[in-house]
Amino acid sequence: MLPKTLTVGLVQQSCSADRNANLATSLNGIRELAGHGAQLIMLSELHAMPYPCQTENADLFDWAEPIPGPTTEALSAAAKELGVVVVASLFERRAAGLYHNTAAVFERDGAIAGTYRKMHIPDDPGYYEKFYFTPGDLGFTPVDTSVGRLGVLVCWDQWYPEAARLMALAGAELLLYPTAIGWNPHDDEEERQRQWEAWIVIQRAHAIANGLPVAVCNRVGFEPDPSGQTPGAQFWGTSFIVGPQGEWIASAPPDQPATLAVDIDLSRSEPVRRLWPFLRDRRIDAYHGLLKRYLDR
Amino acid sequence: MLPKTLTVGLVQQSCSADRNANLATSLNGIRELAGHGAQLIMLSELHAMPYPCQTENADLFDWAEPIPGPTTEALSAAAKELGVVVVASLFERRAAGLYHNTAAVFERDGAIAGTYRKMHIPDDPGYYEKFYFTPGDLGFTPVDTSVGRLGVLVCWDQWYPEAARLMALAGAELLLYPTAIGWNPHDDEEERQRQWEAWIVIQRAHAIANGLPVAVCNRVGFEPDPSGQTPGAQFWGTSFIVGPQGEWIASAPPDQPATLAVDIDLSRSEPVRRLWPFLRDRRIDAYHGLLKRYLDR
Repeated sequence: MLPKTLTVGLVQQSCSADRNANLATSLNGIRELAGHGAQLIMLSELHAMPYPCQTENADLFDWAEPIPGPTTEALSAAAKELGVVVVASLFERRAAGLYHNTAAVFERDGAIAGTYRKMHIPDDPGYYEKFYFTPGDLGFTPVDTSVGRLGVLVCWDQWYPEAARLMALAGAELLLYPTAIGWNPHDDEEERQRQWEAWIVIQRAHAIANGLPVAVCNRVGFEPDPSGQTPGAQFWGTSFIVGPQGEWIASAPPDQPATLAVDIDLSRSEPVRRLWPFLRDRRIDAYHGLLKRYLDR
Repeated sequence: MLPKTLTVGLVQQSCSADRNANLATSLNGIRELAGHGAQLIMLSELHAMPYPCQTENADLFDWAEPIPGPTTEALSAAAKELGVVVVASLFERRAAGLYHNTAAVFERDGAIAGTYRKMHIPDDPGYYEKFYFTPGDLGFTPVDTSVGRLGVLVCWDQWYPEAARLMALAGAELLLYPTAIGWNPHDDEEERQRQWEAWIVIQRAHAIANGLPVAVCNRVGFEPDPSGQTPGAQFWGTSFIVGPQGEWIASAPPDQPATLAVDIDLSRSEPVRRLWPFLRDRRIDAYHGLLKRYLDR
């Protein structure tokens, strides 16, 4: 089998209150990675703004934009100019009172190849996403691009084996997770370590269970809670890429912005799946309970 | 919340051609662990016999036994004498020409609390299980015991997030995997490392995704291929236990028999699930594709 090498770039950035500056950082990162040969470039979750969900503030819906809109136009222009595929994460204004956490994929000619609306929406102290984001209604549908069929998911989706599996069953060649996850600064060191490891482990497991590479791009740095009610969020970076056996390929640091460009061989997935033919043996006759909330006795 | 501590014991054993000696080793391990206070004791997959599936040999069906049968009687007597719950793994003869890879759970009074028939059946060189084992028809149903509701699965099931999820949705408090997995001695060191790590990572991920502890008991040691067609199997031991965040609790060595007794706190699962409420946010309206073999376009 001939190698099908794809150079994947990740822009791990920190975000300030200056939304124009954040977008400029994203665009600079794309430019830098394209200069290093990246063909597919992923940004972190909601990279163009401070993480809005530390408080429930209806004024912040002003930050949402239609797709297409000003931010997608800037990203589209960069994709076209540099000839790269870009996966970006946006606060989408679909209609008055209807907003989504949406990833958009830009083809290298600047066209929007497809979008994914975050399906699983978290809500816990400092991450009040259910206030802002209507759950996605586009399903788990990969986006076809010139660099492959991309299984784009977003952050909280990364804890759900169901999401990864559905993307793989729909032919995704690669899973991509724009992410914004961090520590509560009040948690002790052991709890931080457990959370950070669990986040790595479960995403490596999606690669293993499905025999495909996984790439994750997280934001990094401290962002205060504007309401002062929580101690803020320390986003833990550690953007990473693993291969189809879950094997470690590369990662970015936990504590500073970084760009990362890595070659992956998409053709390796098929021999791995021949060795570990998990898709062959799924018991689809016995999985109906997965469509239930709980299997009460 | 009051701690609900459970002492879990694992018997990681190597197996010889002498089936009586293998069962004696299992029983000695149970006795030793009961002496160390274990309340729930798990044996490795098919612990009473050499791993039969390195060749396809119809004579080996003679090793299968009904349930109840001589082996379950010996295990039942041990469970009753020592007052422990035992999870054992058997080659079940259900009828002429109908055999299963079955785990049986013995209550501390010696009664059979329930059985689980391996649902996912592998088949790859040296692991010709599809020849021997009819796929299970009991579904993913946990077994209720005096020490809790046990999500018993077997070996190849460990690669399927679906199996772990279904057990969790049915109320399992703990996942248990009797296992027989090893290296092909012809594989190079890097491939061995990838396989071994992947096996650990995906089972830790089941703990994380479902917020419950996971225990795995693997066999250990080299077993030759009686047909001489393959280089045999080097079972990699490394039986282990992780908590509900996938955090490492304890493990046995990769290269020698061992018994392991570990305290786990079953009451920790609920605070972990409150912190990470994955069950709350599952998109059961959008998971129907999980019942398909593949989502062809």
